[in-house]
Amino acid sequence: MKNKEIEKLIYLFSKLPGFGTRSARRIVLHLLQDRDIRLKELIKGLIHASENIVNCIECNNIDCSTICTICSNQNRINTIIAIVETVADLWSLERSNIFKGKYHILGGSLSTSDLITPTKLGLDKLLLRCKRDKVEELVIATNSTIESQTTAYFITEYFKNESVKISRLASGIPIGGELDYLDEGTLSAAFEGRKLF
Amino acid sequence: MKNKEIEKLIYLFSKLPGFGTRSARRIVLHLLQDRDIRLKELIKGLIHASENIVNCIECNNIDCSTICTICSNQNRINTIIAIVETVADLWSLERSNIFKGKYHILGGSLSTSDLITPTKLGLDKLLLRCKRDKVEELVIATNSTIESQTTAYFITEYFKNESVKISRLASGIPIGGELDYLDEGTLSAAFEGRKLF
Repeated sequence: MKNKEIEKLIYLFSKLPGFGTRSARRIVLHLLQDRDIRLKELIKGLIHASENIVNCIECNNIDCSTICTICSNQNRINTIIAIVETVADLWSLERSNIFKGKYHILGGSLSTSDLITPTKLGLDKLLLRCKRDKVEELVIATNSTIESQTTAYFITEYFKNESVKISRLASGIPIGGELDYLDEGTLSAAFEGRKLF
Repeated sequence: MKNKEIEKLIYLFSKLPGFGTRSARRIVLHLLQDRDIRLKELIKGLIHASENIVNCIECNNIDCSTICTICSNQNRINTIIAIVETVADLWSLERSNIFKGKYHILGGSLSTSDLITPTKLGLDKLLLRCKRDKVEELVIATNSTIESQTTAYFITEYFKNESVKISRLASGIPIGGELDYLDEGTLSAAFEGRKLF
């Protein structure tokens, strides 16, 4: 007995990641019951983002300017670039506060199903950037799935004749992790990558 | 390293029910990466809802017209009204397809903290409706919390001198429920409300 406008809105929310019909219904109801404040604020925020957010022409990050805050930050090191799959990965690395270089966002991993092809990963642009900024190291910070590992291998191959060093994030036991709960792949990786005291 | 527009949007989403910063971040990122389709569609849907959804003047339901689809439906019985707390409860009952009468939405339960007072529950309006439509039965379909039960008691008191019958939903063991997992309150209610074969 819900009307079509409401059904449509629930549908739109239910298609967002992490949502099902039930949670979408809950959010929509919440917004519709607070139409004057919450709903208006959300609309304003979304419109503002829709009108102002663009992709950085350097690294593909999202920001309000065509060169993002990270790329235009003079305090960040130009000569080391971390290659990540998504903006979410960039945000994760930024939260860890460990990396002071710049980024290249692939926009996904190599996949036949998602139609992400090598050219879409922007590797040609990255190569030009490496030459222009005399980049010394590319840190491949992709996920640890099969597709991501294929992508990582592809990137290594793509840059193998260039002078730039290529590294990748270590695999192993997560901090706080318990051996008993880890899969064989992680354990093998941790074992192979063991370090001497 | 996220810009203020994005931070603001994440904040707005994180304040919605069922959201935390992490899930809000995920949604915002998803929307920003699909600005031309998903984001625009969502904005359109929200604006549409914001401009068109109003509260039904009869039962307080939300709909596109001031008399909602349920209240204006000639096939529904006029003489029995279910009293629910929220629109979500109305939707739940509608999904169960058991009830063919009309509704009255209280908009919450009696509470000192939420500032919901007896007048806000719209009982005066409901009383007028009962007289106008010669309502025979009011089904109190509130939740089973302490506050809701107080509200139910208050409604019964409010209507005690009227000719309308007042009933309430049965308490007991949920279908598919296991005794071992139920609290004492539910078990007592189920025991007291036992029926002879």
